[in-house]
Amino acid sequence: MNYKMVFYTIGRILQIEAVLMVLPLMVAVIYGEVPSVFAFTVTLILEFLLGTLATAFLKSKNRIIYAKEGFAIVALAWILMSAVGAVPFVISGDIPSYVDAFFETVSGFTTTGASILDNVEALSRSMLFWRSFTHWIGGMGVIVFVMALIPNLSERSIHIMRAEMPGPVVDKIVPKIKNTAKILYLIYIALTLSQIFFLLLGGVNLFESLVYTFATAGTGGFGIKADSLAGYSPYVQWVVTVYMLVFGVNFNLYYLVLIRRAKAAIRSTELWGYLGIFAVAGVLVVLNVAPSFSSVSEAIRHSFFQVASIMTTTGFSTVDFNLWPAFSKVVIILLMFVGGCAGSTAGGLKVSRVMIIIKTIMREFRNLVHPRSVSAVRHEGKAVEDRTAYGVCVYFAIYMLCFMAIFLLISIDNFDIETNFTATAATINNVGPGLGRVGPVSGFSDFSAFSKIVLSFSMLLGRLELYPLLLALTPGIWRKK
Amino acid sequence: MNYKMVFYTIGRILQIEAVLMVLPLMVAVIYGEVPSVFAFTVTLILEFLLGTLATAFLKSKNRIIYAKEGFAIVALAWILMSAVGAVPFVISGDIPSYVDAFFETVSGFTTTGASILDNVEALSRSMLFWRSFTHWIGGMGVIVFVMALIPNLSERSIHIMRAEMPGPVVDKIVPKIKNTAKILYLIYIALTLSQIFFLLLGGVNLFESLVYTFATAGTGGFGIKADSLAGYSPYVQWVVTVYMLVFGVNFNLYYLVLIRRAKAAIRSTELWGYLGIFAVAGVLVVLNVAPSFSSVSEAIRHSFFQVASIMTTTGFSTVDFNLWPAFSKVVIILLMFVGGCAGSTAGGLKVSRVMIIIKTIMREFRNLVHPRSVSAVRHEGKAVEDRTAYGVCVYFAIYMLCFMAIFLLISIDNFDIETNFTATAATINNVGPGLGRVGPVSGFSDFSAFSKIVLSFSMLLGRLELYPLLLALTPGIWRKK
Repeated sequence: MNYKMVFYTIGRILQIEAVLMVLPLMVAVIYGEVPSVFAFTVTLILEFLLGTLATAFLKSKNRIIYAKEGFAIVALAWILMSAVGAVPFVISGDIPSYVDAFFETVSGFTTTGASILDNVEALSRSMLFWRSFTHWIGGMGVIVFVMALIPNLSERSIHIMRAEMPGPVVDKIVPKIKNTAKILYLIYIALTLSQIFFLLLGGVNLFESLVYTFATAGTGGFGIKADSLAGYSPYVQWVVTVYMLVFGVNFNLYYLVLIRRAKAAIRSTELWGYLGIFAVAGVLVVLNVAPSFSSVSEAIRHSFFQVASIMTTTGFSTVDFNLWPAFSKVVIILLMFVGGCAGSTAGGLKVSRVMIIIKTIMREFRNLVHPRSVSAVRHEGKAVEDRTAYGVCVYFAIYMLCFMAIFLLISIDNFDIETNFTATAATINNVGPGLGRVGPVSGFSDFSAFSKIVLSFSMLLGRLELYPLLLALTPGIWRKK
Repeated sequence: MNYKMVFYTIGRILQIEAVLMVLPLMVAVIYGEVPSVFAFTVTLILEFLLGTLATAFLKSKNRIIYAKEGFAIVALAWILMSAVGAVPFVISGDIPSYVDAFFETVSGFTTTGASILDNVEALSRSMLFWRSFTHWIGGMGVIVFVMALIPNLSERSIHIMRAEMPGPVVDKIVPKIKNTAKILYLIYIALTLSQIFFLLLGGVNLFESLVYTFATAGTGGFGIKADSLAGYSPYVQWVVTVYMLVFGVNFNLYYLVLIRRAKAAIRSTELWGYLGIFAVAGVLVVLNVAPSFSSVSEAIRHSFFQVASIMTTTGFSTVDFNLWPAFSKVVIILLMFVGGCAGSTAGGLKVSRVMIIIKTIMREFRNLVHPRSVSAVRHEGKAVEDRTAYGVCVYFAIYMLCFMAIFLLISIDNFDIETNFTATAATINNVGPGLGRVGPVSGFSDFSAFSKIVLSFSMLLGRLELYPLLLALTPGIWRKK
């Protein structure tokens, strides 16, 4: 384990977080929110000093980052970022309990959107801004961002990117990893700006356009109203529906479009799987809930909004789907696990994993009937290595075991099974709201401090795709040599 | 596909079922239950004729059974056995609806024990006997039984046994498969007789001793009282606890003990995994529910009874665990999925599969940290082939996908999530009772006919370990060549 490089990188990350806090600080100044100005100033100064100390004293000549270092950096960085990001909430008094603030910040960075706030509308503007901004930061991955900045980074540091980026296979778009990180961020920023534009066009004010766009871009879901997006115009709801879907697509496809290879982008099997599942789920829900709406267009709008919101693991809502019939609720639960595309800001298992699992199962069937046949699992037009195909099935097994462990631990609070089950699903898949007591119009405030910590861990597990956090818990990874 | 051999074997199976129906017929005669005497007589005569016709006209020179034929025989046989076994219930008027009778019979043969009866105590003695007896028949597998009888069976017919016997690896105990089947049945009969003896010793009358023993031996769980075993003495409850555990152990271990290789049996890692999970779950439940009982011994008895009942997928109850705190309910849900040992009469994933999955995950972790290390998954003292280890993970993925499909389909009935979820878990794992509306003191009668058929399919899927039934649904398996 190259400790120097691990802490050097984490130092850089803390510096970046401190710099990013200037934005909410500016919001606090603009709205004249004194406690927030104080909270952000103190936090960012101390954090920047800490980060600078780490980078100054831990410069390592050996800049190679292996898989081990990649996992360690990612696990530690996300925990520390959340731990520090929670501090302003406590100092300003907006969220007095540190455990609550930590839960809320983890929920932000992991783009979950689960909240312990009973009355979100009571929060100051700058804190609402910071909450949504953590979604935007966490969406693309802060480490990918840092990699675009660290000079002379070895090409081997693809490991660090693999550990943070979602999906079964992470490829460099362009040969230099630094440039890959830059391209991804530029696409992310461009899409963000376009959504802000369309929201402003719909008459939403600048502040609200910003916070909703941040929360959409990161597929996070923190809102600023008790009823999420129920109070906005159909135009705004449709814009958000489209953008949730846009941010749930693999960013590599946008790059392909940029370099005029749109045909290759359109041939993506994952894209069609993603849109197919979205369409089928949407139609099923429309058919199931139509009787409860006054018009068909309303039923379509609310159904597709909710389906897009859950499948992309954003977690916004325009209606209380906790009151929907059981069939639609089960569709929602299943969509939570599917999630968006690999290489997007969405959570869940990812469509490509689900597709590879199903294809691996089909091959298993063929092998059982014709034991001597040999065939490969094919995905995105090429054969998937057995190692990868089976690796995805093992990943699924770990996912389910983690799910069961969290489900068991939070049940100590003695809430009903539906609440415990969907609270676990909504956090590990980074969705946000669940059903029962954690439905879209209620929150996670009733849980004990113990459960809040377990659920924070669940959100981190899901966002970092299990391995970094689980490996960080094994002693083997921390050995010197 | 060797159609002749498939239908010849099924003919034999129907003959056997007809012969086995003589027992409930005798019970009907003894208790003078005229409608039942008529129902069993008509059914068994027609079934025997049908079976005899099939075996007479479909004698095949080619007796080789490949994997394909094995799966087809098992899938068809279990569906037909249940379809015919349901007839007496309808003819006698005990269960007027055929769908209900089919559900009940599938539940019997698959050793699930889920019931559509609102008032089990209203059933005639002979029908109660037949219901429990189907558990006993289904427990060891009727086809294993048939294989002990078919002459000149090719040794390749291990395929048929593999398709019916539970567990990731099925081995012949002795070189000749016919003798393996005989030995398994002799052990099964000996254990059954010993449980009857201990129940008689506890003052239970002969009829009740028989039906409870059948239901315990098959790890089925059909009772004859509305409150299952709540009304019996602590002695009887402990005897049943012990025997549920006994029938959840791999029968190969009993054979090892028989041939004086008890040391080898005791070294079984699956056995220790099984007892370990049982002990830990039992202790957790005792600690969680103790406050609701008047004495510690009572808490221990009820907790261990329920844990043994759920883990071995029997489904008896001595208390209404639907009223237990959430933590114990989640323990129960998780135990449903674990199930008993491979090669036992229990359902669920099986302890050996769970252990292989966990070991495969541990190896994946090692490989991630040390990408160049090579190590095998070890189980029962030897290296597990990669093919088998990954096959178990694929099996788990199929299991979960089937689970989700059934969960979605039955939610159309619009019951609550807890009911739908545990109804699915209780059927696919062959447990019987779930939670919510399908808890131990209620039943499955509220479900629609559609859901009852889906849940019957779920029980068959679980008992036959997915592949036979799923492959029977693919056209590939039915092709002539």
